[in-house]
Amino acid sequence: MSPANPAGAAGVRLWGVSHSDYVRPLAELAVNFCANVRPGQVVAVSSEPGKEQIARAVAEVAYERGAKFVDLSVFDPHFKRARVQHADPATLDYVPPWIGERVLALGEHRAARIVLTGPIAPHLMDGLDPVRVGKDMLPRVKESSAVVNARTTNWTIVPCPTPGWADLVHPGLEPAQALDRLWRGVAHVCRLDELDPVSAWVGRLDRLIEIAAKLGALRLDAVRLQGPGTDLTVGLLPSARWLAARFTTIDGIEHVPNVPTEEVFTSPDPDRVDGVVRATKPLFTAGALITGLRVRFERGRAVEIDADRGAGTLRSLAQRDDGAARLGELALVDRESRIGALDTVFFETLLDENAASHIALGHAFEFAAEDEQDRQRLNRSEIHIDFMVGSNDVAVTGRTKDGAELPILQDGVWQI
Amino acid sequence: MSPANPAGAAGVRLWGVSHSDYVRPLAELAVNFCANVRPGQVVAVSSEPGKEQIARAVAEVAYERGAKFVDLSVFDPHFKRARVQHADPATLDYVPPWIGERVLALGEHRAARIVLTGPIAPHLMDGLDPVRVGKDMLPRVKESSAVVNARTTNWTIVPCPTPGWADLVHPGLEPAQALDRLWRGVAHVCRLDELDPVSAWVGRLDRLIEIAAKLGALRLDAVRLQGPGTDLTVGLLPSARWLAARFTTIDGIEHVPNVPTEEVFTSPDPDRVDGVVRATKPLFTAGALITGLRVRFERGRAVEIDADRGAGTLRSLAQRDDGAARLGELALVDRESRIGALDTVFFETLLDENAASHIALGHAFEFAAEDEQDRQRLNRSEIHIDFMVGSNDVAVTGRTKDGAELPILQDGVWQI
Repeated sequence: MSPANPAGAAGVRLWGVSHSDYVRPLAELAVNFCANVRPGQVVAVSSEPGKEQIARAVAEVAYERGAKFVDLSVFDPHFKRARVQHADPATLDYVPPWIGERVLALGEHRAARIVLTGPIAPHLMDGLDPVRVGKDMLPRVKESSAVVNARTTNWTIVPCPTPGWADLVHPGLEPAQALDRLWRGVAHVCRLDELDPVSAWVGRLDRLIEIAAKLGALRLDAVRLQGPGTDLTVGLLPSARWLAARFTTIDGIEHVPNVPTEEVFTSPDPDRVDGVVRATKPLFTAGALITGLRVRFERGRAVEIDADRGAGTLRSLAQRDDGAARLGELALVDRESRIGALDTVFFETLLDENAASHIALGHAFEFAAEDEQDRQRLNRSEIHIDFMVGSNDVAVTGRTKDGAELPILQDGVWQI
Repeated sequence: MSPANPAGAAGVRLWGVSHSDYVRPLAELAVNFCANVRPGQVVAVSSEPGKEQIARAVAEVAYERGAKFVDLSVFDPHFKRARVQHADPATLDYVPPWIGERVLALGEHRAARIVLTGPIAPHLMDGLDPVRVGKDMLPRVKESSAVVNARTTNWTIVPCPTPGWADLVHPGLEPAQALDRLWRGVAHVCRLDELDPVSAWVGRLDRLIEIAAKLGALRLDAVRLQGPGTDLTVGLLPSARWLAARFTTIDGIEHVPNVPTEEVFTSPDPDRVDGVVRATKPLFTAGALITGLRVRFERGRAVEIDADRGAGTLRSLAQRDDGAARLGELALVDRESRIGALDTVFFETLLDENAASHIALGHAFEFAAEDEQDRQRLNRSEIHIDFMVGSNDVAVTGRTKDGAELPILQDGVWQI
C-alpha cells in the first residue's frame, strides 16, 4: 500500500476519446468514491506543477459535493533539486515545522486528503549525490504516518498522467502519443473505462477483502517467497491482521486509500525477516530510479542493498533511522490485477506495487495488529518505501505456528 | 504600498532578447536585493500556476545564497472560483487556521518572504456574484498584516509576467506579442534593462527617502487632492511618519518590499477623511476588475462607492469589518515614475499604484506613526486595497496645523 507521496493532461485523442474526457471522471472517482468526501469537510489536495487540470477538477467536484474548503498544497521537485545542489548538506533533513503541523491539523479537523501522484520530472535528480538526495524526504513528512495510523482523515492517492511521466513510461513514442498511451493505461487500471467504475471497484474490493479474511483466519506465523533470486521468509506477529484497501476512519467514513488497488497486506514482525529478495520491477523513490534491486535480510534488518542503478539512494534512505532498514509491510497481489496484466512498468509505486506482491522498508500500519502488545512491536520509521518482489514466478507459501506449510499464491493464483 | 497578494514566461524574443534572459535577473533582483535573503534563512515563495519558471529561478538563487529552506506556497484562483460558485455562502469567509499560522511562524522563524504577483486568469471571476467573491479574501490572510507590522520578515513583492496577464494588459495583440510587450514593460519598470539594476534602484530609493524626510519635516496636519472628479482632504496623525519602500527588519535586515516602487507613503487619521475621489486607473482586486471608481468619504468613512464596473465587489469588501471602509494608506507618486511614464494600465496594484498617487481602504502600517498613542488610532482591518487617485492633473497640497497651505505635487513634480 502506498501511504504517502504527493499529475495535468492535454487534449490528445485516445480511441476517439480525448484525455480531457477522463479528467472529470477521474476527479469524481477520487472525490466521491476513493476519498468519499463528506459535506462540510476540509479537503486537502496535494499536487505538483503540471497537474493543474486534474487538481482543479478535484476542487470543483469537492465543492459541488459540499466541501467547506479545498486546501491546495503544491510540491515542486525543481525546488528540491536546487536544494540538493546548493544547500548546506547539514540542513538537507530540515523541514519547517508548519508543514507537519498542517498535516496534524488536517487530522484534528477530520479532513479529507487527496494526493495526485505520478512523477512530473523523473530524471530531475539524475547526476546528483544520492546521499544528499536521500536526506531530503519531502514531500513525505513523518506526521503523515501518524495521521494515517490515527485514522482521522479519509484519504486517497490517485494517479495523474503528465508529459514527464509519459516519457518515462513510453520513451520510444512521440510526446503526444506517450501521453495518450499513459492516459489509456491509467484509465484502464482505474477502471474508468468501465460503464460504472464505482461498481467495478466495489466488486474487486469485495474480493480482496474476502481474501484478506481467509488469510487472517489461517493465523500464519510466517510467509515465504520463493522465485528467481528470491528466498525470503517474513515472520508475522501473532495478532497480525490482513487488510485490503477499504479503510474506515474513526468517524466511520469508508474510503479507498489507493486507486488502483489490487493488494492484500499486513505489517510483519520487524525482527523476523531473513533471506534474499530480488525486486521484480524498478522502483522510483525520493526522486531516483532504482533498478535491479537486491536486498539481503538478517533477523529483520536489510544488511545488504545492491542494485544495477540507484543503490546509493536506497542505502541512504535505509540509514535514516532505526526502523528504516526493517520491514513495515508485506503485500500480496494476484494475477487478476489489471496492472500486472498490462505488463507496463509505470515507475510509480502506486501503480507498480499493485502489479505484484511487494514489501516495504520503514513505517508499519499500526492497525495491522489486533493486540496492543503486537502493535507496540510494529516497525517505526520516517520512511515507507515499497518495492516489488512478486511475479507469477514467485511462489508464496504460508507457515502456521505448528509448522504446517500452505500454498498461498502459485503462478499468481490464490490457493486459499 | 502593496502589503500582500500572492508569474512564468515563455521563450519569445524582445529586442532580440528572450524572455528567459530576464528570468534569472528578475530572480536575482528579488532574492539578492529586494528581499535581501541572508544565509541560513527560510525563504517563503508565494506563487500561482504558470509562474513556475520564475519561482524555480528564485529558489535556485536563494539556495545559492545559502537559504536553509525555500518553502513554496501556490494559490490557484481556479480553486477560488469553484468555491465561490459551489460552496455554502456561509462558509466563504472560512480560512483553515494553518494558513495564517504558517504566516505567523514565518515571522517567528525570521524568514524571508517573496511574493510573485500578477493576475494569471483575470477574467476568472467574471459573472460571479460580487458579494460572494468579496467574502473570500484569499490568498490574503489577516496574519500577513501582523507579520508586516512586526517587521520580523524581510519580504518583497515582484511582478511575474504570464500569458493571462499579458492578454489583459495588451488585449489587441497576439498572445506571444502581448507576453513579449508585458515582459518588456516589466523589465523596464523593474530597471532590469539597466546595466546595473541594483545601482539604479539604490539611486531612486535614495531620492524617495529624501522626499519622505522632507514631507515628515513639514509636520502636515492634512493633505488635499484636487483634480477632475476629486476633492479629498486626508487628515494626518500628529506623529505621522512618511516612508519610502526601503524597510529594515527588527534584526536590521534592509529590504525593499515592493519592486517596482516609486511612492512615498504614510497611514492617515482614519477619522478625518472627507470629500470625493475619482480613481484615475482601473483596479484589479479579489479577482474582480473595478473601473470608473468613485468614492465619497465622510468623517473618515467611505459612505458611497460607485463604479462603471465592479462596484459590488468593492462595496462587499468595504463591509468586511469596522475598518474596511476607512483609509489605511495615503501614498504620493511623482511623474518620474517609470510606470507613470509608460502610460500602460497593468491591472495589477503593485505596478499601477506606483504609476500614481493612491489611497488604500483597510489596514494601516503601524510603523507609520511615531507615538504609541497615534499608533493605537491607526486603522485596522482584514483588508488593504489600494486604488489610484493621482495623475499629473491632480494637485496635492499640504496643510499645516496652523492652516498654512503648501504645494506638494503640481503637474506631477515635487514642490518641496
